[in-house]
Amino acid sequence: MAKEITSRSADYSQWYNDLVYKSGLADQSAVRGCMVIKPHGYALWENMRDVLDKMFKDTGHVNAYFPLFVPKSLFEAEEKNAEGFAKECAVVTHYRLKTDPANKTKLIVDPEAKLEEELIVRPTSEAIIWNTYRDWIQSYRDLPILINQWANVVRWEMRTRPFLRTTEFLWQEGHTAHSTAQEAIEEAEKMHEVYTRFAEDYMAIPVIKGVKTTNERFAGAEETYTIEAMMQDGKALQAGTSHFLGQNFAKAFQVKYLTDKNIEEYVWATSWGVSTRLIGALVMTHSDDDGLILPPKLAPVQVVIVPIPKPSPEIAEVSMKIIQELTAKGIRCMYDKDDKNRPGFKFAEHELKGVPVRIGIGMRDLEQGQIEVARRDTKEKQNIPFANVSDHVTNLLNEIQSQLFQKAKDMRMQNSHQVNDWKEFVSIMEEKPGFVYAHWDGTSETEDKIKELTKATIRCIPLDAVEESGKCIYSGKPSNKRVLFAKAY
Amino acid sequence: MAKEITSRSADYSQWYNDLVYKSGLADQSAVRGCMVIKPHGYALWENMRDVLDKMFKDTGHVNAYFPLFVPKSLFEAEEKNAEGFAKECAVVTHYRLKTDPANKTKLIVDPEAKLEEELIVRPTSEAIIWNTYRDWIQSYRDLPILINQWANVVRWEMRTRPFLRTTEFLWQEGHTAHSTAQEAIEEAEKMHEVYTRFAEDYMAIPVIKGVKTTNERFAGAEETYTIEAMMQDGKALQAGTSHFLGQNFAKAFQVKYLTDKNIEEYVWATSWGVSTRLIGALVMTHSDDDGLILPPKLAPVQVVIVPIPKPSPEIAEVSMKIIQELTAKGIRCMYDKDDKNRPGFKFAEHELKGVPVRIGIGMRDLEQGQIEVARRDTKEKQNIPFANVSDHVTNLLNEIQSQLFQKAKDMRMQNSHQVNDWKEFVSIMEEKPGFVYAHWDGTSETEDKIKELTKATIRCIPLDAVEESGKCIYSGKPSNKRVLFAKAY
Repeated sequence: MAKEITSRSADYSQWYNDLVYKSGLADQSAVRGCMVIKPHGYALWENMRDVLDKMFKDTGHVNAYFPLFVPKSLFEAEEKNAEGFAKECAVVTHYRLKTDPANKTKLIVDPEAKLEEELIVRPTSEAIIWNTYRDWIQSYRDLPILINQWANVVRWEMRTRPFLRTTEFLWQEGHTAHSTAQEAIEEAEKMHEVYTRFAEDYMAIPVIKGVKTTNERFAGAEETYTIEAMMQDGKALQAGTSHFLGQNFAKAFQVKYLTDKNIEEYVWATSWGVSTRLIGALVMTHSDDDGLILPPKLAPVQVVIVPIPKPSPEIAEVSMKIIQELTAKGIRCMYDKDDKNRPGFKFAEHELKGVPVRIGIGMRDLEQGQIEVARRDTKEKQNIPFANVSDHVTNLLNEIQSQLFQKAKDMRMQNSHQVNDWKEFVSIMEEKPGFVYAHWDGTSETEDKIKELTKATIRCIPLDAVEESGKCIYSGKPSNKRVLFAKAY
Repeated sequence: MAKEITSRSADYSQWYNDLVYKSGLADQSAVRGCMVIKPHGYALWENMRDVLDKMFKDTGHVNAYFPLFVPKSLFEAEEKNAEGFAKECAVVTHYRLKTDPANKTKLIVDPEAKLEEELIVRPTSEAIIWNTYRDWIQSYRDLPILINQWANVVRWEMRTRPFLRTTEFLWQEGHTAHSTAQEAIEEAEKMHEVYTRFAEDYMAIPVIKGVKTTNERFAGAEETYTIEAMMQDGKALQAGTSHFLGQNFAKAFQVKYLTDKNIEEYVWATSWGVSTRLIGALVMTHSDDDGLILPPKLAPVQVVIVPIPKPSPEIAEVSMKIIQELTAKGIRCMYDKDDKNRPGFKFAEHELKGVPVRIGIGMRDLEQGQIEVARRDTKEKQNIPFANVSDHVTNLLNEIQSQLFQKAKDMRMQNSHQVNDWKEFVSIMEEKPGFVYAHWDGTSETEDKIKELTKATIRCIPLDAVEESGKCIYSGKPSNKRVLFAKAY
C-alpha cells in the first residue's frame, strides 16, 4: 500500500478520515471546521454538479446568483427558519481593518468601521431570495419562478468532519415560487425524484424516499422530502432534501400576487438542495480498505493506462491508440507517464484514488497482442486482445456501475430489519446498527425519548410504507405504518 | 421600445445602469453594494466560465476550492497584500446570534460567541492558499502546482456599480507555484495570453496588452500583466490581470522546496484572475440604446424564432424543424411561444436582451417557403429560403462575431491618440477621453500628479511599445517609450 489507511474493521470513522485526506479528496485548512477541496475531490464535485445542473435545466430551471450576506433584519423575518440557524451562523460586524498602533506589522479591526446592521453569512438563502422575489412577482403571469443557485454556505458546526459536516460547504439550492399549493407540492416532489435518480443512477447509492417528521423537518418547511442512504457501518446519511415551504416565506416577506381573477394571494414556495456532503456518502457507500471506489459515471478518470514496468515509446504508441478510441466514446482516460515509481506503487495509487478500470501494458503484452484490464471494485483482472479493448472497457464500466449499486442494495437489505420489540430495537441499535422499520405513535415526545435512549432518529416516513395496524415500538400506542429508524450522520 | 432606457448620448453612465437592470442581467439587492445576478446575466457568466475553464484545463490547470475565510494572522502575513486589502474587507467577529431579551422576535449578536481570532471574508486568496501550499510542497517533484479556483470574493467598495464594482463578485483566481522565476514568469505570460484570446476571440473586445506601473500593480506582485479595453465612452476597463508574485508569498508563508541538488529554496508564484466585471465590459463595448448586443459565441440564446403574428401549429412545426437543424450544429435556439404579446413588443424584448439573430415566421412566409432573418447588431433583415436557413444562420453568427470585434477595434482606433503636448493631453482627457499614448518619466510622482490633474492613469506600459526617445508629457524629463494613459473604470 502506498499510504497507510486504518482498516474499516479497526475504526470506520478513522478509515473515513484517512481515506479522504490520503486519496487527495480534501485537506484540512487553517480555518476551524473548513476544509480545502483538493483537485481530485473538486473534479468529482464538478462531475456531480454537471450532471445535476443538466437535470435541473431539463426540468425547466435556470441558475442565478444571490448575495452571500443576509442583513440581520431579513434573516430574522421568518421566525422558525431564523431560530433554526441563529445558533450556528457567522456574523460580519465590521468592514475594515487598520494598522495596530501598538504593533505596526499587525492589523486590528477598525472600531470606527462597525456596520449599522450586522450581516449574516448565508447558512441558506430563503431570506435573501424571498426578499428579492417580492420585487419580481406581481401577477400570476410572473409565476412560476424556477431558480437554482450554486453557492457556498456557512453553518458554524461545533463538531466537523470533512465533507460530512463542515463550517463552509458548497451546494446548490433551488428556490421556486408558485401560484398554488398543489403546484408547489408537485415541484418539491419532482425534485425529490430528481435527487433519487441522481443518487441511484449516477452515485450508485440506493436510497429510501420518504418525508421527515415534524422534529426533523427543515426550519420553516411544511413538508420535507428526503432521500436516505445506508453507509457501510449501517448508519443513515441524508442525501438530499426537498421542501414544500407553504406560504411561510411569502408571508414573512410579503410576497403576494394577483390571480387571474384579480385577487391578491400569497405565493407558494419550495426549496431543495444537495451539497458536497454527497462526496462523503459516495466514499462511505463504496470504498474499501485500499482506497476509494468511485462509480464510473462520476469518476474524474475512468480508465488509467499503466506501462509496465515503465513508459516506453512502443507502449506509449499503443496506449495513445487505445486512449483515442476510448475518448471517442466519451470515456475519460489517463496515461500514467511517471517513470520514477514502480508499477506496484502506481497500482496502489490509482486504487487509492478509485480509478474504476486500470489497463496494464507490458512489452510481452505487445508481442501477444493483448493487454491486462483490472477493475477496481473486485480487483479482478482479465487479458483482452487489442481489438476488443474499447468494447470490453465500455461494457466493464457499465457493469461496474450497476454492480456497485447492486452491492450497496444487498448490503442495505442485509442490514434492514422489521422490529416489533423494544428490547430487540435497543440491541440492534447497540450492536449492529442498520435500518429498522418499526411502528411509532406519531408524537414528538416518543421520537425524542427513543433518540435519547438509543441515539436512533426517525430518518423518514417512507413514501412506500404499507398501511398496517401495529403498536408503537416504544409507547405501545396504536400506529398505522412503520417508519424508518437509524443512527445517522 | 419595451422598457425605457436612457440614451448613451444623454447619460452614458445612466444608460449602463438602466440597461443592466432592464435587460435582466442583474438586480439590486438588500445588501449594500451587492447585486443579484439574474438568470440572463448568470447564463452569460456560465458561458464565459465554461470557455475560460476549458482554456485553463487545456493549459494544464486543475480546479480546487479553498476556504471563504482567512484568519487575520494569515491575512496580515504578506504585508503589501494585507495593506492593499485591509481597508475594504468584511470581518467576521462572532459565530452565533441569540434572541434579543428585550424583544423576543428579534435576534442580536451573542457577545459570548466572539471569535478568538477574527476571520476576513477573502478579498483574494493568496494568503489562505499559500498557507496551504506550505504543506503540499517539499521537493522540486511537487512542482509546479497549477491550480485555479472559481469563487466569490468580497471587497468593501464605497462606490459600487453593477458588475463593474460590487462588494461581492464572482471570479476565478489561478494560483501557481514554480521552482524557478523564469517558469513563473512564463506562466504569468501564458495566462496573460489566455485572457487576451478570451477577450478578443470570445468577447469580441480588442485589448491592449501591457504591464502595470508600480503604482497600479497588484498588492504583493513583482509584475502585473494586464489587458485593457476601451469602452464606448473612451474610458479604459481593466479586463484581466496576471501577476508574477516573485517569492513574496513563499517568504511570508515559509514555502520552501528542495531542489534536485538538495538545496532549500523559496518557491516562485503567480496568480491571475478575471471576474463578473467582464460582463460590464461586454455591455459597454457592444450595446446600443435599444439594449444589449451580445457576441454570438457567448450569448445565452443565439437565435430566437418569433411566430408572426402569434404562435400557430403550422409555424411551430416549421420552427421545430429549423431549431432541430440549428441545434445539431451546436447553435442555442429558442422558440418564442408567448401568445399574449404582439410581435413588435417581442422584437423589442429580444433586442433588449441582445439575442444576436431573430427569425420571424408568418403565414405568408410559409406559403412562400422563406423566413425573415434579422441581426441584432445592425438591425438588417433578409428573406431566406427554408433550405438555406441553417447555413445562412451559421455564417451570420460568425459574421456578427467578427464584425463586433472589428467595430470595437475601429472605435478604439478613432479614439486613440499619440500626444506630445501637455495642453493637448489635458484637453483630450476633458473633452473626448480616449487612449492617449504619451511619454512618461517613469516616476510615481509624475503619475500621481497627472492623475490628480486629469483623472487619467497609466493603464499599462504596452508590451509592443516602440523604443523611441521623447520627453515626459508632464515633467519634460527624458523617456524611451510611450505608455497608455486613460481615464478608467
